[in-house]
Amino acid sequence: MNSKKDTQQLYDSFVATMRKRADVEYSIGVLSWDKEVNLPDKGAAFRSQQVATLSGIAHEIFTDKAFGDTLETLATKNGALNPKQKKNVKLTLKEYQRSKKLSKEFVIKKSQAISAAYHAWLKAREANDYQVYKKELGNIVAICREEAELIGYKDHPYDALLDIYEPGATTKELVTLFKDVRVQLVDFVAKIRSKRQIDNAFLFKRYTKKKQWDYGLEALKNMGYDFKAGRQDLSEHPFTINFSPQDVRVTTRIDERDFTNMLWSCIHEGGHALYEQGLPTSQYGLPLGQAISLGIHESQSRLWENNVGRSKSYWKAHYKTLKKNFPKNLDGVGLAKFYKGINKIAPNLIRTEADELHYHFHVMIRFEIEKALMEGSLEVDNLEEVWNEKYKQYMDVKVPDAKRGILQDIHWSHGSIGYFPTYSLGSFYAAQFFHQACKDHPTILTAIEKGNNQPLLDWLREKIHQHGRYYNAKQLCKRITGEPLNFKYFMDYAQDKFGTIYGVKS
Amino acid sequence: MNSKKDTQQLYDSFVATMRKRADVEYSIGVLSWDKEVNLPDKGAAFRSQQVATLSGIAHEIFTDKAFGDTLETLATKNGALNPKQKKNVKLTLKEYQRSKKLSKEFVIKKSQAISAAYHAWLKAREANDYQVYKKELGNIVAICREEAELIGYKDHPYDALLDIYEPGATTKELVTLFKDVRVQLVDFVAKIRSKRQIDNAFLFKRYTKKKQWDYGLEALKNMGYDFKAGRQDLSEHPFTINFSPQDVRVTTRIDERDFTNMLWSCIHEGGHALYEQGLPTSQYGLPLGQAISLGIHESQSRLWENNVGRSKSYWKAHYKTLKKNFPKNLDGVGLAKFYKGINKIAPNLIRTEADELHYHFHVMIRFEIEKALMEGSLEVDNLEEVWNEKYKQYMDVKVPDAKRGILQDIHWSHGSIGYFPTYSLGSFYAAQFFHQACKDHPTILTAIEKGNNQPLLDWLREKIHQHGRYYNAKQLCKRITGEPLNFKYFMDYAQDKFGTIYGVKS
Repeated sequence: MNSKKDTQQLYDSFVATMRKRADVEYSIGVLSWDKEVNLPDKGAAFRSQQVATLSGIAHEIFTDKAFGDTLETLATKNGALNPKQKKNVKLTLKEYQRSKKLSKEFVIKKSQAISAAYHAWLKAREANDYQVYKKELGNIVAICREEAELIGYKDHPYDALLDIYEPGATTKELVTLFKDVRVQLVDFVAKIRSKRQIDNAFLFKRYTKKKQWDYGLEALKNMGYDFKAGRQDLSEHPFTINFSPQDVRVTTRIDERDFTNMLWSCIHEGGHALYEQGLPTSQYGLPLGQAISLGIHESQSRLWENNVGRSKSYWKAHYKTLKKNFPKNLDGVGLAKFYKGINKIAPNLIRTEADELHYHFHVMIRFEIEKALMEGSLEVDNLEEVWNEKYKQYMDVKVPDAKRGILQDIHWSHGSIGYFPTYSLGSFYAAQFFHQACKDHPTILTAIEKGNNQPLLDWLREKIHQHGRYYNAKQLCKRITGEPLNFKYFMDYAQDKFGTIYGVKS
Repeated sequence: MNSKKDTQQLYDSFVATMRKRADVEYSIGVLSWDKEVNLPDKGAAFRSQQVATLSGIAHEIFTDKAFGDTLETLATKNGALNPKQKKNVKLTLKEYQRSKKLSKEFVIKKSQAISAAYHAWLKAREANDYQVYKKELGNIVAICREEAELIGYKDHPYDALLDIYEPGATTKELVTLFKDVRVQLVDFVAKIRSKRQIDNAFLFKRYTKKKQWDYGLEALKNMGYDFKAGRQDLSEHPFTINFSPQDVRVTTRIDERDFTNMLWSCIHEGGHALYEQGLPTSQYGLPLGQAISLGIHESQSRLWENNVGRSKSYWKAHYKTLKKNFPKNLDGVGLAKFYKGINKIAPNLIRTEADELHYHFHVMIRFEIEKALMEGSLEVDNLEEVWNEKYKQYMDVKVPDAKRGILQDIHWSHGSIGYFPTYSLGSFYAAQFFHQACKDHPTILTAIEKGNNQPLLDWLREKIHQHGRYYNAKQLCKRITGEPLNFKYFMDYAQDKFGTIYGVKS
């Protein structure tokens, strides 16, 4: 490395490889999106093969020895790089080194275990019997333990897995966080449960498909989602996917007997999509063109879904239109009743259908189980009993069967241990960010009340989206709010909102 | 090469590379389909980049030196291969050798010329001025001449280009064929033109979008198109694309003021799609899993569109349903009138809107021009006058401007010289094949009259689809019909059908 010019040339070659890889990865994205939205039945087998081939090519591009050498040279002799370039190199090198720690044999073994576990999970769900799944799940746990050892960790094997989804987060921090959840939230929610139930039957009348679809599109537009850089389609499970910041697609589903299904999925996925549409195109294919972590991604979807979409301010602006669209269903339902209806709190069995508060018990239970599995203090044999006990303990519900209990989530069968906590992190970050946004610009709230979400979006763009992965989650939180993630903000939000709705004091 | 086993292993590695390449090529297909059907405006730039990256990867896979060595070894020491395997190797080697004749520099130069020509063509169309396009078109012609020299040819430089689209076809044969067209068809069509015009105004009443869409789907189903291995969508220009024989998609467009637009595009693309759905999945990625040529592909679409879709037999089965779907528009229009209406013959300026007969004059004009350009007996400078003269001479129409004349087709701006003749070859093959099918099984026609197209599809599957590229177009034609392509079959068909409709004898 003789000169600035050499370094820049080397950096350019690094960028070229990263973009080539991104082109292949995003192509896989298009194939996957198409699979969920369009694929005819018989096309599935060849499509899987095509995706596998592209995945292999992307892997080859990234794990190429010469590319690794380039990375290491750039990481050590980086005087001529600017801070953003340095960050891109540093984050990529971390990923490269991680990938090098896992042998090809291990990767194949893991992928086979996942395939077996996924099929066992499907079978077990059909049989509604955890026993059918147990062995393969045990395999996944063993492989995740092995992965943690291969990757290495300072304090806890779970740290190594968590780092995949939430770089920089530690088990220790999560333990503290969920202690707060247990201490503060369990009692508060129990008080709410003792109150008279809210009637929200009007949300489950027949809402016709076409009208729901149109309303969802309007909601997305109103959030600031750019339809010239994206589109919405139908799929079995709603998701957001991006092929560049200029093509960020969302999907939703419509249940004519449950209006909230479509509504929250649109706003939730819209929140994810706004983040992706706000990433800098100049950093395409590079870490600074990517989202920080699953937790921060989820903070964007939750902020829009809960802090905005389930707020009274939002519906002050939109309830009139909604009522105009569904006059019969909402006949006699005033704004106050509607607002209460969409904020009903009730314990339930299924995580994805949980309300804003109980949701975190679902996550906490999974976190406690995952942590114990990784420590070896819990084995898969008696997992179902542990699961059911925890549901009784935290939510006072009895799990009637495996399908509505331990078999409900796909994550473990996909080899994803360490993923669940990011859901709660998302809500907690969302509360802290939204609090800060409103503090920075009190006009944000008044604008929302008038149907104008632009000031909020501007704040998110400036503070979060435009930076890509320049800051990690902790740095970002500190930078924006002046302090680390603090459960207090979520708790304040919950007490303020639900305390008022239910007439409960903390 | 010591043993049968070694040869088989080598063949397997050949197949693996071909399938890897096919996976990448079909992925490009998915990205391209998505571009036409779904892509949000802003997504175009990154999408082009993604397609370019995958194209580069596919090219690298195919032109790899070791792969070439494998091919050459397999081609020379092929005793242990079965006839199908030999054919796969032989056809692939031909393509490999062709690709090796074009240097990387030439390929880049051509692709840049195409990009420039395409943009010039767009500009010229906007300005309705051929002069804007002329220089870039001259460039394309020069590059195509150079390509012909690099590839090599026996008799005529045009042969080298023709071979890309219609392997084995020669300029000499086309000259003979179009001589037949000129001698036999021009006079016959002139006689028709002298007759009283057919009234088909009922086809241009308002046909609502949704009803047209539904009718198109029914027409596809009725042909035998498998919706479990495909789907239909809307796009600006109708097309067929396949990602495997299990995923073959068609698109259509709907003009509420022109029912025929959707109708013929559905049946035409359906014909292409049936061919692709009938290719053997076991030969995925290999020549025997591919269509023979553009001419044979077009024979399938034309056979369904014209020989079936515009026949009285077909409408005997379907006219009742059509009328039920559009009772107002077809009020007072009996089957006889409808049949005449969809078979109206009238000269026109635009190739893609031409009737079954005038169509071939459009193609002939392009063929004559292309051949002369390749010979150097015509230059781009006075091309517009030549074009307009030929339209006057063959069709007795005056070209009013460049847009409705020389600027109407995209092909040359895409560097595709040698493509146009395959359109006419398609119709001529279709006539010969359909004649043979009805001769082999007279029940084919009676079944069509009852709305059952399966016997015809079975015949096409057995005689054509299942073989992939095992036979070339000439061999196939000889094998099925006992003789080479013969214009007589098309002429007989035309005289029989239009002679009756217009009361004209040849």
